[in-house]
Amino acid sequence: MKIKACGVKEKGARPEPFYYEKEVGRNDALVKITHCSIARGDIQFMNDDWGDTNFPVVTGHEIVGVVEEIGANVTDLQVGDRVGIGYQQEACFECEFCRAGNEQFCPHQKVIAVNCYGGLAEHIITDNRFVFKLPANLDSAKATPLMSSGLTVYTAITKANLKHNAMVGVLGVGGLGLLAIQFLKKMGHTVSAFSHSPGKKEMIEQAGATYVDSSNEHDVSQLHKQFDFILSTLNVGFNIDTYLKLLKPQGKLGLVASPLQKQSISIGLLYDYAQRTIYGNYVGSRKDMMDMLAFSAKHNVECLVEIMPFADMDKAIEILKSQNVPARLILENPL
Amino acid sequence: MKIKACGVKEKGARPEPFYYEKEVGRNDALVKITHCSIARGDIQFMNDDWGDTNFPVVTGHEIVGVVEEIGANVTDLQVGDRVGIGYQQEACFECEFCRAGNEQFCPHQKVIAVNCYGGLAEHIITDNRFVFKLPANLDSAKATPLMSSGLTVYTAITKANLKHNAMVGVLGVGGLGLLAIQFLKKMGHTVSAFSHSPGKKEMIEQAGATYVDSSNEHDVSQLHKQFDFILSTLNVGFNIDTYLKLLKPQGKLGLVASPLQKQSISIGLLYDYAQRTIYGNYVGSRKDMMDMLAFSAKHNVECLVEIMPFADMDKAIEILKSQNVPARLILENPL
Repeated sequence: MKIKACGVKEKGARPEPFYYEKEVGRNDALVKITHCSIARGDIQFMNDDWGDTNFPVVTGHEIVGVVEEIGANVTDLQVGDRVGIGYQQEACFECEFCRAGNEQFCPHQKVIAVNCYGGLAEHIITDNRFVFKLPANLDSAKATPLMSSGLTVYTAITKANLKHNAMVGVLGVGGLGLLAIQFLKKMGHTVSAFSHSPGKKEMIEQAGATYVDSSNEHDVSQLHKQFDFILSTLNVGFNIDTYLKLLKPQGKLGLVASPLQKQSISIGLLYDYAQRTIYGNYVGSRKDMMDMLAFSAKHNVECLVEIMPFADMDKAIEILKSQNVPARLILENPL
Repeated sequence: MKIKACGVKEKGARPEPFYYEKEVGRNDALVKITHCSIARGDIQFMNDDWGDTNFPVVTGHEIVGVVEEIGANVTDLQVGDRVGIGYQQEACFECEFCRAGNEQFCPHQKVIAVNCYGGLAEHIITDNRFVFKLPANLDSAKATPLMSSGLTVYTAITKANLKHNAMVGVLGVGGLGLLAIQFLKKMGHTVSAFSHSPGKKEMIEQAGATYVDSSNEHDVSQLHKQFDFILSTLNVGFNIDTYLKLLKPQGKLGLVASPLQKQSISIGLLYDYAQRTIYGNYVGSRKDMMDMLAFSAKHNVECLVEIMPFADMDKAIEILKSQNVPARLILENPL
């Protein structure tokens, strides 16, 4: 079938109407897209900042919609199901990573913007194993960012394997940071949120976390060896050593974003009376996705969103290029 | 009692005879020292490279000797026992770390060269809980480096929680690296040893590992995503990104040494299709020490050593300052 999308033909160009052919395979689901987020990451794909964009590109990897057709082998979905789709579209299901339930590391995987077309479109055809039913009580627009940001943050937190009521720091209070605070609070942890924006203090406190002004070196250093886990959602450089020092022995620093430039650290802080760990995480497995959606439904985890019609995509891109928006922009495609 | 030691009075000075008073407390053991290593780390303590040396300092934190006297509360040791002692001398046994069996992170701990006097001496008095009986089949001189180097490397390896027959890389083939190869091989893993010294190829192969010339960028990059775990024993800077790329998804880079200068890494390599981890480790817990000694005895793990009489300490220091010695220098104090 012919799918209508918004494509970017070459590096740095603006999105324009783009059509591509794809058929519904035996394992696929055809989804009519109702919501798709657009964020800084999409602009970075359009600009090929990571060097792995394939043009023409259709970005958009946080997608909510309704199943319109299923392939012959599909048993877990039905036409009419409300579903979410994230970054990953396919996996081999045969390699050591797939067999271990870590499809996100499959060397044969297909992901939006690199190997296949994404959600800034009217429809998408995806392997049904990467099309996830949305629990009934999740709002479509507010759940859209869960499909990638939510998965990334949730998986990064569960990897830390925290004890009950751990002391946790969150660096950066944008979309990822706000989600992290919600997940962590609802898991029963004590959360401090580090931000250099005093204007976010109220929002942070409403989410149940303690605000720490990250521009106040004295306040930050007072928290020496206080944290079991610190999750950084910052995509700008920061002094990693400063935050390593805030970790207890055996404490962990999780990173779900970073600037492109190399960052420097004092390796001694990892082992000197400490045995500290740094790890990265991006997205998660199918099981992580299902766990995250169930957790979000049970605990009413919701993203801060601003809804715009699909037709306003150009305006959305201008907003993303010019401002630091705390809410995630969601393009809505009325059915 | 008055203990005769070799002390350094001030930063950069040379060791000279030094006497201090210490009594055998209720929990202590008095040990007549028969062997003590002297290594680059001792010179660094004498020069206060880490900034935490307390002068006058008696270094030496890999010690083997014989128990001469025990305190009233000591039940696990007897006079005449052959024992080993490492870096840590005391812990509070009450804090959260001690209660969890991680005495090496105790904030009240005492360690040689920072809070107490070490093994370049005739005797040492240590809390009996940090005095470990040596299994009978371990040679005193060859076992001496196990008490700190062995503990550090063994604990770093066990923290990686490797599956059976994992693919492991070892960076640097000095004392720590050679120990790492032995532990890893005897745990059943496949080991590649990275060194820029072709002269070490034979020694590496005799230890059962594959030699990789780390100065050959092509050979190194060919090993892209091959390793479950890489252990770096290098105390000079190296390109961390190069080795992160050699790790499989979910692979781990363990660091047991580092230069004092900050090192730079590309954070994206930690999470981009990967979820990789970096951690540090120095020494280990009491349980780690007992496990490591039992493993070493069972599998005949031995360090490459060169034995010199205590009286030749000045000569040993000159050797350490001027050369890169593959063998660990052990000063012997004939009983």
